[in-house]
Amino acid sequence: MSKSRDPIGVFDSGLGGLTVVKAIRALLPGEDIHYFGDLARLPYGTKSREQIIRFSIQNTEFLMRQRIKALVVACNSSASAAYAVLRRRFSLPVVDVITPAAREALLASPSGRIGLIATRATVESGAYDKALRALNPRSRIYSAACPLFVPLVEEGMAADRLTQLMAVRYLAPLMRKKIDTLILGCTHYPLLAKVLKQVLPRGVHLVDSARPTVQGLAEILSQHGLKNGRGRKGKLSIYVSDKPRSFTEIGERFLGEKLSHVEVVRR
Amino acid sequence: MSKSRDPIGVFDSGLGGLTVVKAIRALLPGEDIHYFGDLARLPYGTKSREQIIRFSIQNTEFLMRQRIKALVVACNSSASAAYAVLRRRFSLPVVDVITPAAREALLASPSGRIGLIATRATVESGAYDKALRALNPRSRIYSAACPLFVPLVEEGMAADRLTQLMAVRYLAPLMRKKIDTLILGCTHYPLLAKVLKQVLPRGVHLVDSARPTVQGLAEILSQHGLKNGRGRKGKLSIYVSDKPRSFTEIGERFLGEKLSHVEVVRR
Repeated sequence: MSKSRDPIGVFDSGLGGLTVVKAIRALLPGEDIHYFGDLARLPYGTKSREQIIRFSIQNTEFLMRQRIKALVVACNSSASAAYAVLRRRFSLPVVDVITPAAREALLASPSGRIGLIATRATVESGAYDKALRALNPRSRIYSAACPLFVPLVEEGMAADRLTQLMAVRYLAPLMRKKIDTLILGCTHYPLLAKVLKQVLPRGVHLVDSARPTVQGLAEILSQHGLKNGRGRKGKLSIYVSDKPRSFTEIGERFLGEKLSHVEVVRR
Repeated sequence: MSKSRDPIGVFDSGLGGLTVVKAIRALLPGEDIHYFGDLARLPYGTKSREQIIRFSIQNTEFLMRQRIKALVVACNSSASAAYAVLRRRFSLPVVDVITPAAREALLASPSGRIGLIATRATVESGAYDKALRALNPRSRIYSAACPLFVPLVEEGMAADRLTQLMAVRYLAPLMRKKIDTLILGCTHYPLLAKVLKQVLPRGVHLVDSARPTVQGLAEILSQHGLKNGRGRKGKLSIYVSDKPRSFTEIGERFLGEKLSHVEVVRR
């Protein structure tokens, strides 16, 4: 039986999901968080659906052994391939990043012409299309897989001229469709917001899934009586399957605070 | 006891090692080859030394179960981290891609001023520096980690203008050192030869490890009486830990022939 004092589990293929953790720490500061980043096997977005499902189940099993009360699938590639499987397989509240971002995009878009940028796995899954159409059948979604954005961000090139050139290329087909809202369908992309704004016409809304996801999470914890008491400061424990050299630098860029309590879990 | 009819084992983090397989098929056409590509966990070059060693041992154990008579570590990141460990741990001839490429570079370089481009893991290991200095203490090596080259090649952008811009940036520090020879220290890079030649001053030699590695392999098989008979056509069996959508296209680009006998081995 889950208890309100149990931690929230969050997993991602890498450290990008720390943007979601950052939002949890802002909105639900009393919660303990157990984060798992699968750095040994990242990226997920270039791999097959079957493989992403296997990895996602393994990551969830790891977090379940730590008695989490709710799970956030922070990785868009995992959420798009494995969300339904994880919900069926594990008996705890599971929140993904896709439906909340789809809702937010509909709220932000006057015309209903919505763009999506994401990994190849996420785009090809059609998960965002499905979520948007379920919410509003008249919405139109135009997607672009942007496989080089993750390595560019990981290399610290988020503000680089080459990243801007790449963004021009990736976004041109979406701009021709006159989108007024763009979903950042990967936890790495919030770091590209500045470059994307330079490339997009003024007035296009950027939708980042971290905030709406945490809105939904907060709602679910309340409904299930699982919220941890106010006033206490929650503890963040970070588990990773590998700790490459640039680990701390990249992690702190996403989390916006110092990394501590990091443990390497070898597979 | 290894027999001449047993297959040769080759592993790489992905499909780039098929450039080495292509050279084996050209020079040793009678040999059966068992190739393992760890597509579920690639890339290796961004990961920690410990992790790369673990993966390399697992890959070798998989090939050993198939009774290989010799092992080629086609992945530069694996070779630079794990070659000594694999030699100690497994009792069969192990050939890596680093020493053969270092020899070839010394043979090609009149001035002894040699450049290396490779993944971050390979550059930081210092394996090429060590191999070159062991062969000729007066050689000078200048290295540049080129982490974006692998994703650019995987995205089919080997001939793209953006790849050229990236190459200019990566190679500029090496060109200032007046290198006359450049080691392509990653199995993906032979596909970039054209772009690299456009960027480099005329006359700089490119050294690709595939051919010298297979030279060394052929020598070892002869010495140990392990060469398979002439006249027969060797069989190529490919094992991969994942089969993403672009698998066949990328694989055939490296191998230069149709992919067949592919089996997915889930982990």
